[in-house]
Amino acid sequence: MIKINIHDRITMLQEKLCQSQLDGALIINPVDLYYYSGSRQNALLWVPADAAPILLVRKSLTRAKQDSSLDDIRPFPRGKDLAAILGQAARRVGVLEDVMPVQQLKFYSRLLPEVDFCDISGINRELRSVKSVAELEVMKQAGDKLCSVFEQIPDFLRDGVREIDLSAEIEVRLRRLGGEGPVRMRAFNMELFGGLATCGASACAPGFFDGAVTGEGTSNAFPNGASEQLIMRDLPIMIDYTGIFDGYIVDMTRMFVIGQMPDEAQKAFDVALAIQAYVEENLQPGQICSALFEGACQLAEEHGLLHHFMGVAGEQAKFVGHGVGLELDEFPVLAKGFDVPLVERQTIAVEPKFILPGLGVVGIENTFAVGVDGGVRITRLKDDLVCV
Amino acid sequence: MIKINIHDRITMLQEKLCQSQLDGALIINPVDLYYYSGSRQNALLWVPADAAPILLVRKSLTRAKQDSSLDDIRPFPRGKDLAAILGQAARRVGVLEDVMPVQQLKFYSRLLPEVDFCDISGINRELRSVKSVAELEVMKQAGDKLCSVFEQIPDFLRDGVREIDLSAEIEVRLRRLGGEGPVRMRAFNMELFGGLATCGASACAPGFFDGAVTGEGTSNAFPNGASEQLIMRDLPIMIDYTGIFDGYIVDMTRMFVIGQMPDEAQKAFDVALAIQAYVEENLQPGQICSALFEGACQLAEEHGLLHHFMGVAGEQAKFVGHGVGLELDEFPVLAKGFDVPLVERQTIAVEPKFILPGLGVVGIENTFAVGVDGGVRITRLKDDLVCV
Repeated sequence: MIKINIHDRITMLQEKLCQSQLDGALIINPVDLYYYSGSRQNALLWVPADAAPILLVRKSLTRAKQDSSLDDIRPFPRGKDLAAILGQAARRVGVLEDVMPVQQLKFYSRLLPEVDFCDISGINRELRSVKSVAELEVMKQAGDKLCSVFEQIPDFLRDGVREIDLSAEIEVRLRRLGGEGPVRMRAFNMELFGGLATCGASACAPGFFDGAVTGEGTSNAFPNGASEQLIMRDLPIMIDYTGIFDGYIVDMTRMFVIGQMPDEAQKAFDVALAIQAYVEENLQPGQICSALFEGACQLAEEHGLLHHFMGVAGEQAKFVGHGVGLELDEFPVLAKGFDVPLVERQTIAVEPKFILPGLGVVGIENTFAVGVDGGVRITRLKDDLVCV
Repeated sequence: MIKINIHDRITMLQEKLCQSQLDGALIINPVDLYYYSGSRQNALLWVPADAAPILLVRKSLTRAKQDSSLDDIRPFPRGKDLAAILGQAARRVGVLEDVMPVQQLKFYSRLLPEVDFCDISGINRELRSVKSVAELEVMKQAGDKLCSVFEQIPDFLRDGVREIDLSAEIEVRLRRLGGEGPVRMRAFNMELFGGLATCGASACAPGFFDGAVTGEGTSNAFPNGASEQLIMRDLPIMIDYTGIFDGYIVDMTRMFVIGQMPDEAQKAFDVALAIQAYVEENLQPGQICSALFEGACQLAEEHGLLHHFMGVAGEQAKFVGHGVGLELDEFPVLAKGFDVPLVERQTIAVEPKFILPGLGVVGIENTFAVGVDGGVRITRLKDDLVCV
């Protein structure tokens, strides 16, 4: 199990709080509680800007004490006792308004009427985007597990089975390796079961998902991922799956075909590989995220494929890579408008994809760490099209 | 696929809005968008108190038009156009503050500076708690599918396998039947992968989950559900799984043993069955939710098991049943403080369970609909302990 260095994370958060003239931060949502305390119990983490953090646990105090290396772990206080714990000096307090429900903010506003709550969502996403060496090691191990399942796909990929049958075979193998879930996503309204296994036109179905491909899904209630459509010969089969181990997500896509890949799809696949190579080479500290997206678009345009890049025409996603870690949609995003430089040890899933109406989706995806010599691959499996 | 009668749902919501002197409601979260529009795309549903609703879609407009039977479906408007769509008369507007992030409320407050937003979380949960005849039919079909997987458990339940291996076998069978996910939960901080398969002491692990059993899980990041502990002979094996089909969740638990059930566990199981029989008989319109919990506690006390009822001592859950439907934690709750009468066609998972330290968990769970003659069973499989 991952050995978390809470101390460094807390220190970096405290530095950011001081820079923003904040007296502290209240953290209550699962994934950030886990990140800053080492425990994902139902709790509140109080991080004063200049003193040791306190974990106040609703349930389970016993488990929180097992999980977390913090020194001060207590039961959640009654009523006004919370104000006493925060102290008189706490006036400006950061919260994560990107994921905090309104009812929760109102609850804490009533308990702490003197406090002015400020949004620190951006600070938090920036801090979490850069992984420690230990986190990278966990992600590499997760990558190896996910790759080992992808290597088995030729054993069970057959035409005539449904997309969900193919998904089921992938999911059961991930689970036996210790795979967790659900896939945590930060953006409002986003959800994903585990991944996508799609073939032919169903991969081109328009959908809510903020990515190149949504998939038809199994119903209007879960319109995402594999459907009951059949896997067919001579059409591109796109398998895009996450692996989640010890809380960390890795994300990859490989292309498969039973029989012969259509020429048009093969050509687009080669362009996707070229785009990935360009981005991979430039995944270096200081490179500007939006410039890499721009470069990817130029390559797509040079091959006459810009109108098929990253989505159904008219509903195209405006990115070519997304941060990944404890959540699938972390910072940074290789996207239009994301005019910030890459930082070493950020982890990014790079996924150039083309939607070819009637034919399906082709593309590639790997999770990389930003490195001084370019992207360091976390999903270490060859990119080649697999013909079954 | 379920044929949704949006019209009735919208009408009932509008009645409630009028009663609360609200001019309309803004719905933006996936599960409620699906409930009131028939589509779970990334969208905003505007329901005026006295006019036809309008679905404003960010992505995908194409899919939303396929999914929803609403007449007025448009692209999401730019900037101030939203105010024009709502109209001058919209002053008091309901939103779902239980699940709406603060950033979303601030976004809409800026777009609609004249509007006073009011919380209608309670109204929404009440409306959704009562299922239509069509919803009950979908849930019965989901129940049959889940039961068919439970019937197969003796085929693969073996001692010496890990809890996650057992979970994987259940999950893959649900998926092949069209099972969806993730399990949607409404309460802040709650998550569940699909269910729990636990044996012996690991079932007694304390945890964050607002239920009798959390399970150890696979890591501190996902401390819930099956763990890598082994399934052992002569100890109670509790399998508590959800089935999700067409968006609707059903929930059930059965007990298994390989070899011989310990006497103490067998006795507690018989008490759980007696409590379920008591609650089932009283799942009638007009019965008070908290009184049923009280009655369940009395039966547990008569058998000297109150201190083991519904959780680890000191961290016991204060309920014996929970509403279930599009979310796992719907209204009503058969819980202390829930002093409201049952309504016909509410759907409730009744789950009396005992935590026996060192031995494990024993109990039963079935999903019922509230009926005039008592609970109507949705998970139609016999309750008996299964000896393998």
